[in-house]
Amino acid sequence: MNPVADRSQRTVVSRKRAADLLERASELASCTERQGQILRTFLSPAMDEVHRKLRPWFHSASASTSVDDAGNFHALYRADSEFAPTRLVIASHLDTVANAGAYDGVLGVLVGLALIEMLEGKRFSFEIEVIGFSDEEGTRFGIPFIGSRSLVGEGGDAALLGAKDPAGVTVRDALEQYRREHPEALPSVLTSNLAAYIEFHIEQGPVLESRELPLGIVESIAGQSRCDLIFRGISGHAGTSPMTLRHDALAAAAEWMTRCEAIAAQTDGLVATVGKICAEPGAVNVIPGIVRCSLDVRHADDVVRRCATDEILDTARAVALRRGLSLEAKEYHSQPAVHLDTELILLAEEAVSDSGRQCVRMTSGAGHDAMVVAPYLPSCMIFLRSPGGISHHPDERVLMEDVEAAIEAGIHLLKRFELTSKVRQRV
Amino acid sequence: MNPVADRSQRTVVSRKRAADLLERASELASCTERQGQILRTFLSPAMDEVHRKLRPWFHSASASTSVDDAGNFHALYRADSEFAPTRLVIASHLDTVANAGAYDGVLGVLVGLALIEMLEGKRFSFEIEVIGFSDEEGTRFGIPFIGSRSLVGEGGDAALLGAKDPAGVTVRDALEQYRREHPEALPSVLTSNLAAYIEFHIEQGPVLESRELPLGIVESIAGQSRCDLIFRGISGHAGTSPMTLRHDALAAAAEWMTRCEAIAAQTDGLVATVGKICAEPGAVNVIPGIVRCSLDVRHADDVVRRCATDEILDTARAVALRRGLSLEAKEYHSQPAVHLDTELILLAEEAVSDSGRQCVRMTSGAGHDAMVVAPYLPSCMIFLRSPGGISHHPDERVLMEDVEAAIEAGIHLLKRFELTSKVRQRV
Repeated sequence: MNPVADRSQRTVVSRKRAADLLERASELASCTERQGQILRTFLSPAMDEVHRKLRPWFHSASASTSVDDAGNFHALYRADSEFAPTRLVIASHLDTVANAGAYDGVLGVLVGLALIEMLEGKRFSFEIEVIGFSDEEGTRFGIPFIGSRSLVGEGGDAALLGAKDPAGVTVRDALEQYRREHPEALPSVLTSNLAAYIEFHIEQGPVLESRELPLGIVESIAGQSRCDLIFRGISGHAGTSPMTLRHDALAAAAEWMTRCEAIAAQTDGLVATVGKICAEPGAVNVIPGIVRCSLDVRHADDVVRRCATDEILDTARAVALRRGLSLEAKEYHSQPAVHLDTELILLAEEAVSDSGRQCVRMTSGAGHDAMVVAPYLPSCMIFLRSPGGISHHPDERVLMEDVEAAIEAGIHLLKRFELTSKVRQRV
Repeated sequence: MNPVADRSQRTVVSRKRAADLLERASELASCTERQGQILRTFLSPAMDEVHRKLRPWFHSASASTSVDDAGNFHALYRADSEFAPTRLVIASHLDTVANAGAYDGVLGVLVGLALIEMLEGKRFSFEIEVIGFSDEEGTRFGIPFIGSRSLVGEGGDAALLGAKDPAGVTVRDALEQYRREHPEALPSVLTSNLAAYIEFHIEQGPVLESRELPLGIVESIAGQSRCDLIFRGISGHAGTSPMTLRHDALAAAAEWMTRCEAIAAQTDGLVATVGKICAEPGAVNVIPGIVRCSLDVRHADDVVRRCATDEILDTARAVALRRGLSLEAKEYHSQPAVHLDTELILLAEEAVSDSGRQCVRMTSGAGHDAMVVAPYLPSCMIFLRSPGGISHHPDERVLMEDVEAAIEAGIHLLKRFELTSKVRQRV
């Protein structure tokens, strides 16, 4: 068959797979704990329902399925030989936030399914394992990544096991009950033959859309600093205090926020956000005496993030001092950046190029399962454009053409992975 | 008696009156509806208790007392002749905000009492009527000035009579019940022989303290504009949205607040306050999509206030437009400035000077009963320094030396008023 016809033929198939994927995402969206919106949490009956829907789809594609005792869903597509094959993991999560969209997480699992289907029984020298993690969002217990942390052996953490859901059930109790109800569940462990981890995920931001690109290759997942700030000024009557005699906590916070935004804008890839603000006493005719606000700073380079956070907090102190206010500021959370695998990033870039498309390297500002897996396994992530940058919202969407691009790039990535695996085996 | 001895003698007396006044203010503070704090509202039993305490004090100073059917307290100190004397009103309010201080309002009534006491039976050609208004703060019904509005004949207003307290009682019902329980109450009306209105009040702001002056003469009561603003941007993930692609409603509001503060600071006497702010959705890791905030603008000159309000709202629109946000802004309340009586202001200034003290002319940024009375009667206000600018708070204070200054200035004002009255009568 000539290459042009082959390509055109493949396009028809990948378009069909993309259409199937969107239909399946829509079907899985019906598995919810809350009428009228999508909500699916760790070890919930809605999650069992998703597993029941996934099984026949994977079985039809010649993959075997199982669940592990942390509630993760696994589908295994065997290699061309039974003799000690390596294994490539394609994974994402199946849980959601409250009032979620239909693609965050689910999409990555369904891309794994589509890729196996695209193979139509063709085998590689490596196995392909598609994993649907039981928890990434942390919606039920307030602690994220329970699924992937269990897989990499971090599931025994006491803080994690002791965390309680709103009903007072601990993670430990929930897991015990799940294991009683699913006696067939396998132990949740990384097998020793794993070679690499690939995660397809919607971008959940506006970068790819603004660059008119379907796909992005994630180089690193940004580290984050989270801080609480309290500006303490002097409350007063809005009519009787001249501007020059005020110690207005909100005016101080406003000046600081404006400068915080400017500091972030100076450095490529740096983001700083004030998401929460509360002015006390909060009356139209009273000068605010106290303002409490939050600060979230992220960057792929921990030194840049650290310096920027210091500069932003120093600016707050300077603004407060000049205005005769006091400032309390504390960083209550600091999470280092995670860098993904250089070789896999290159392979993924080449695979996108093989598929006749363009992509961009980018930093993920949001946390993902790949962040948990990366210290244990060469990992990479491929982002799909998010229309309007919208996610964690019922309006979350993905374009069919972008799903098609992801599937085609994925097939090329499998082929390139096979090539490098064989080269490695020969070496 | 030589003038020096006379003055020194008077100082001793006025110091004693000032000490008495502070003690009485403290005693009246015990008349409250709420254990552990000062709260005294329109037509409440706590207000009846205040009247019961005031009566013997006024009677001892040779003044007769009454209440009117709007709950206002009246004390009349007669003139030296029964033949059609004019009458000078010295008034303020006896109600309070919740968790109030002991001086806001009460002080003005007690200064009136102290002045009558200082006269020790000496009569002028005019009567002195001390009035304690039943409601200025609007604490019970959410509508202020019920006492003074009733006195000037604005008490029949349908909106006022129909207003309900938290128990669902209307002003009309409350007044009817009060009149049944107080059959001796006189009709609430301005008598035709009133010549002038004087109100002593704590400043409730920091101006006099910052100028190290005990007293201020109020030239005008500032007009006010109150507005609601809604900045509508686009909510987004704090990690995944680069600074350049954001439409952050809080960043926009912060820029506007900073510019709003700068605009107000450019014009003498102009104040602008953002007292309320709410960012939605209000999570540490989410870019605010919507910010709702309040704006309060005041100035003694209505044109200046109007122009400043327009400029501040135009600035909000410009900031929103440049950042790709939309803005909703509406002025929901506009109250014109009230100018006090030029002749009385001069008399008051001279009286302060007579007492050997300095004062400053100022604008009141807060509303007062004088604002309601001024359209009907030549009116002026004398402010006493507020330590720390604190008011509407249990820490509200007044210095004994400033009370003494007010009493001495008040005596000189009565004398100057007598002089001009006699001049007038001769003309």
